[in-house]
Amino acid sequence: MAERLRMGLIGGGPGSFIGPVHRMAAELDGQIALVAGAFSSDAARSALAGEIYGIDPRRAYPDVAAMLTAEAARADPIDFVAITTPNCHHLSAATQSLAAGFAVVSDKPATATLEEARTLRDAVAAAGRPYALTYTYTGYPLVREARERVRRGAIGAVRKVVVEYPQGWLAGPAEHADNRQAVWRVDPTQAGPGGCIGDIGVHAFNLAEFVTGLSVDRLLADLGTVVPGRRLDDDVSVLLRFEGGARGVLMASQISIGELNGLRIRVYGETGSLDWHQEQPNSLSLHFSDGWTEVLRTGDAGLGADARAATRLPGGHPEGYLEAFANLYRDVATVLRGGTAPALQGVHQGVRGMAFIDTAVRASREQSGWVAFDGR
Amino acid sequence: MAERLRMGLIGGGPGSFIGPVHRMAAELDGQIALVAGAFSSDAARSALAGEIYGIDPRRAYPDVAAMLTAEAARADPIDFVAITTPNCHHLSAATQSLAAGFAVVSDKPATATLEEARTLRDAVAAAGRPYALTYTYTGYPLVREARERVRRGAIGAVRKVVVEYPQGWLAGPAEHADNRQAVWRVDPTQAGPGGCIGDIGVHAFNLAEFVTGLSVDRLLADLGTVVPGRRLDDDVSVLLRFEGGARGVLMASQISIGELNGLRIRVYGETGSLDWHQEQPNSLSLHFSDGWTEVLRTGDAGLGADARAATRLPGGHPEGYLEAFANLYRDVATVLRGGTAPALQGVHQGVRGMAFIDTAVRASREQSGWVAFDGR
Amino acid sequence: MAERLRMGLIGGGPGSFIGPVHRMAAELDGQIALVAGAFSSDAARSALAGEIYGIDPRRAYPDVAAMLTAEAARADPIDFVAITTPNCHHLSAATQSLAAGFAVVSDKPATATLEEARTLRDAVAAAGRPYALTYTYTGYPLVREARERVRRGAIGAVRKVVVEYPQGWLAGPAEHADNRQAVWRVDPTQAGPGGCIGDIGVHAFNLAEFVTGLSVDRLLADLGTVVPGRRLDDDVSVLLRFEGGARGVLMASQISIGELNGLRIRVYGETGSLDWHQEQPNSLSLHFSDGWTEVLRTGDAGLGADARAATRLPGGHPEGYLEAFANLYRDVATVLRGGTAPALQGVHQGVRGMAFIDTAVRASREQSGWVAFDGR
Amino acid sequence: MAERLRMGLIGGGPGSFIGPVHRMAAELDGQIALVAGAFSSDAARSALAGEIYGIDPRRAYPDVAAMLTAEAARADPIDFVAITTPNCHHLSAATQSLAAGFAVVSDKPATATLEEARTLRDAVAAAGRPYALTYTYTGYPLVREARERVRRGAIGAVRKVVVEYPQGWLAGPAEHADNRQAVWRVDPTQAGPGGCIGDIGVHAFNLAEFVTGLSVDRLLADLGTVVPGRRLDDDVSVLLRFEGGARGVLMASQISIGELNGLRIRVYGETGSLDWHQEQPNSLSLHFSDGWTEVLRTGDAGLGADARAATRLPGGHPEGYLEAFANLYRDVATVLRGGTAPALQGVHQGVRGMAFIDTAVRASREQSGWVAFDGR
Repeated sequence: MAERLRMGLIGGGPGSFIGPVHRMAAELDGQIALVAGAFSSDAARSALAGEIYGIDPRRAYPDVAAMLTAEAARADPIDFVAITTPNCHHLSAATQSLAAGFAVVSDKPATATLEEARTLRDAVAAAGRPYALTYTYTGYPLVREARERVRRGAIGAVRKVVVEYPQGWLAGPAEHADNRQAVWRVDPTQAGPGGCIGDIGVHAFNLAEFVTGLSVDRLLADLGTVVPGRRLDDDVSVLLRFEGGARGVLMASQISIGELNGLRIRVYGETGSLDWHQEQPNSLSLHFSDGWTEVLRTGDAGLGADARAATRLPGGHPEGYLEAFANLYRDVATVLRGGTAPALQGVHQGVRGMAFIDTAVRASREQSGWVAFDGR
Repeated sequence: MAERLRMGLIGGGPGSFIGPVHRMAAELDGQIALVAGAFSSDAARSALAGEIYGIDPRRAYPDVAAMLTAEAARADPIDFVAITTPNCHHLSAATQSLAAGFAVVSDKPATATLEEARTLRDAVAAAGRPYALTYTYTGYPLVREARERVRRGAIGAVRKVVVEYPQGWLAGPAEHADNRQAVWRVDPTQAGPGGCIGDIGVHAFNLAEFVTGLSVDRLLADLGTVVPGRRLDDDVSVLLRFEGGARGVLMASQISIGELNGLRIRVYGETGSLDWHQEQPNSLSLHFSDGWTEVLRTGDAGLGADARAATRLPGGHPEGYLEAFANLYRDVATVLRGGTAPALQGVHQGVRGMAFIDTAVRASREQSGWVAFDGR
Repeated sequence: MAERLRMGLIGGGPGSFIGPVHRMAAELDGQIALVAGAFSSDAARSALAGEIYGIDPRRAYPDVAAMLTAEAARADPIDFVAITTPNCHHLSAATQSLAAGFAVVSDKPATATLEEARTLRDAVAAAGRPYALTYTYTGYPLVREARERVRRGAIGAVRKVVVEYPQGWLAGPAEHADNRQAVWRVDPTQAGPGGCIGDIGVHAFNLAEFVTGLSVDRLLADLGTVVPGRRLDDDVSVLLRFEGGARGVLMASQISIGELNGLRIRVYGETGSLDWHQEQPNSLSLHFSDGWTEVLRTGDAGLGADARAATRLPGGHPEGYLEAFANLYRDVATVLRGGTAPALQGVHQGVRGMAFIDTAVRASREQSGWVAFDGR
Repeated sequence: MAERLRMGLIGGGPGSFIGPVHRMAAELDGQIALVAGAFSSDAARSALAGEIYGIDPRRAYPDVAAMLTAEAARADPIDFVAITTPNCHHLSAATQSLAAGFAVVSDKPATATLEEARTLRDAVAAAGRPYALTYTYTGYPLVREARERVRRGAIGAVRKVVVEYPQGWLAGPAEHADNRQAVWRVDPTQAGPGGCIGDIGVHAFNLAEFVTGLSVDRLLADLGTVVPGRRLDDDVSVLLRFEGGARGVLMASQISIGELNGLRIRVYGETGSLDWHQEQPNSLSLHFSDGWTEVLRTGDAGLGADARAATRLPGGHPEGYLEAFANLYRDVATVLRGGTAPALQGVHQGVRGMAFIDTAVRASREQSGWVAFDGR
């Protein structure tokens, strides 16, 4: 194995959920090491985070610019940054990093607004550096298998997609109960115009396009704010139409008490269907029109190359969220080392995701019925 | 036990699926006996059906009018009719029977059109005889428990309902493959204006109102015809708004390969939620906002009176579709003997169901976005 | 359909669980009618039961002998008796009925002791009348499918069987809490020498032999009495060896809190395996040595003739315990009308079941290790 | 966070399954780093492994002795070794390492024979250095919760334990198909006297004692070799008796086609029961004698301190095998830094495990019926 790639983290300070997840995922395969970070806009907190992560104290920087400058000057600079801040900082962090010559891994959604996403796309194109977006669920072996099966025609032409993403953790006013994860997600100045739709709806949207290989071209949205006083949506229903005419229903909700992280996708085709649920990620059900039902399990001998490459353990040894996330970083490492990783999501999917949020928020607000979806 | 109530069946001739189901369900508790029938508009087939059902050959009639006249003249006439024909005959069979003084049990939907349903409602009112509609799924013990829990406030005010009813049996052109069940269901002259929505969507609609105790007051519909050449819808997505503001998503589909009879309802309230699936009808999951998950099972000691009364066996002895159906007939017997059966669905729900079909079909065709729902 | 066969019930008086089950199951298909009974040894209670069942009051008899005599003298006598008493009355009821020329359906186990079972076998042989034993679980469509698949070699030679039957309802001293079902089952004078093993262990034993087509030829038993003061076993572990060398583990328990009626069988062969659980009776999992997993569901087109014949509804309409039970009565009707019903269990299986109880009780008491099993 | 602890790996060369697992698990929390290894007895292969693991080439040693000597001489020596060789090398690797002053983490079982385990115990006592055994499944959050619930009396006194561990990967002669994992596991000179029982039965045994807090004091074993020509057992059934009288059934099998890694434990107490399955590790079912069923999920607010401390992600983000394994290493780090980790399994459990294998193998071979279990 070549020397470990060096990662600089942006965000992920003390109390962050997703920062440590990025570190664990990035380092899991021994190909990447977290060596630097601008963990917080508060210099003391950034230093504290650096200590917690166990990095060289000199590489815990007070802000992004400082990190980029200092790292660029080192003999052993970081190879890429990973952005894990609230959405409102994504564009700035990404463009600065790209401009400084660093590759970028960014948490989703790409930016806070669609306009920003288009700006980012141009910046990526101009910089010519890799940019990857961590749509985590595309990293699961059986999600990749599902995509491959659809592509190979195992279920025939896609007719209908049902993708849902229920959660319950924002069913009460968590943002007033000092829940750090909640506060910024329901604040339009930090999250952008989408609440639930930007936080998890966009995952569902991406998963639907990823698995089916189809692009949405029209939608109809009904976004609700259920918890009184909240400023962004917390419950989302969207009807979809894909190119070629396939129908879709996308549901996302953060007020669904009892649901934890219930992302599920069902795809119905002309000759078969498939069903995958994130909370039981190691099985994938396939049904065929002759009444035959097959269950695939992570590690099965009959899986395709993509699924096998994304699997670390023998079947029956559950692989979970961190392993899926680590598969994205494995792809990142492959790309940084000059290879290709076709499943890795990039700025193209970033713009589409932001267009989804933007279009749905506007269509719902204006009750405009079916609207065209322009994901460019 | 008093003498068995006597049932006359309308429809349910040779090859019928639902006719024998009505007989088994009606007779299960030993309170009702099938004794007569106008099983087919073909006299020979009606006679054959009578023979198969094992009734007195003289009581296998060639048509409804003949049955009603002959039975009315007997010393031991039927106590009620059960209508199991295609939808287009429901109104006529019901009004004739009511006019002849007989109580009516009818398969759903109430009629072929909304206008017919309103006519039927007036006829029921005028006749003063019991009229019951077999929304089968309201007969499951745990559906009744779900309703009772919601009513008692176990999950707080309802915020969101997701009700889905996927099937796959019409994913291909079954109507051209000599499938009797398919032929009339996709024929507007027999089924009315709704295909999938009238066959199963209306079950989902009724279940949502039954469990929540709330009435839909607005909806937005997207009905599709996926199988080429089919004349009615076979895939349905409807967004709902209930009185008081709760949101809903209703999905029904008959092109969902691999799905058998997947009716499922999830209700999310302010303080809890519940989840029930028809194919695993003997468990009901409850979640509460403190993170507590409870699973109720048919036969559990802690269930309410309605659920217990609808249960025949100790827990762990699966009760299924026929037992649920039989619970409706048990209610019918109770009503016919002068008692009350609050869970029994009648012409009021029949009109609402037809209004649902009618409104959704028109709203979808006209792409009218959100429309008011008038269930009167 | 021919005239209904007439059934006389022995036992099944007020408060009985299994009596009404037999009636519902017997009558479900419209081929059999309950017309007479010796429901209780208390004449008043027998009359009351007759009223509840809705039969002619003159045919509610005070005892078995009276019923047999009176029915034999009628122009429309019963065609068979169904025995649903505590075990201690099985032999007497069966032999009297056979001697009077009636066919016999009996609840399991066949008798109270092995010696009685052998006496019964001789009586059946001498009478030349049909005798059927209601091993209920053999009536499920997918149990019959499992048997057929094994027989056809779908999983290769059987190597290992795990059959378990946990229940929890006797985890406390229910027999002192006025639980009628409990009282006789834990009383050796009514139940015979086996408690849990006779009540449910024998079902597990029968199911293992039924599905595999193999006969047990050795066993090792560990029976426990967990609840203080109880006189019979309430927790059972038995190691099995089948002819040809396949191994088995049989567990039955009535002190397993939370378990309702958890009969489950797993059969592992040289090239595949199968798994069926009574509480989810409408699916059957098959696994093959190449890593392939298939799930069969009741009603699937690919099922064999036996499973299809035992199915009343389209797939996805759950069929449960009563329907399985009714399949046994369907077989009984077939036999009484001169046909054959190879899946129907008879006195041969009755003797084997009693030999299983007897052998295991003795082997456990004497801690004799492995003992030969003689099921004749 | 303090500086990372330094790990030296023994075994885990190219093609190893468990070596990389130890590395990923050890490094997951950023507290430990793999820096050295004697990966293979073949020097070239050891060097290759070091390269794959990305360590300093000088620290990839040709044998254990070389590593211990060289590391002891460094300013930054390893803090502990992790042993991942076939069983036959465990004792030697552990005692050498202890003698050289290093702490030891060892894969299970502790050694190849009971006698060796007792020798090891003395060596651990003499060295006064930490020794930990990676009984992986004790690292799952909900296994720790189960243990805590039992200890707190949530299910009352334990009456019955059913622990099973079915796998299917050795259902055919994999050892003749060049399967490295298979070859040594079925070879008594490398694995010791137990095949399946030593590979996975011992996990089941440990889990039963871990969760219940009870010690086995008698057992009865039936070990089979199903695949022709195999020299060790591949199918295991053991009846257990715990101190205080609770009963147990332990099943382990490697010929159960379709089973992947199906470790499951059910514990039945006087007032409740619990059920956990390794392939769905993030839920734990609890049942209580009043009919109440509760489902706990990883991340639930109501879980105890041990489970919470073993959880890295919010509920609904599946944590799997690697995370469970990493919890053992987190405990190791705690101990090496002077803390305590009561759940960490050590040489005491190592001796008990070897005694279990030894006793069961002998009891089965000699068909000695119930035998006393001496785990010292």
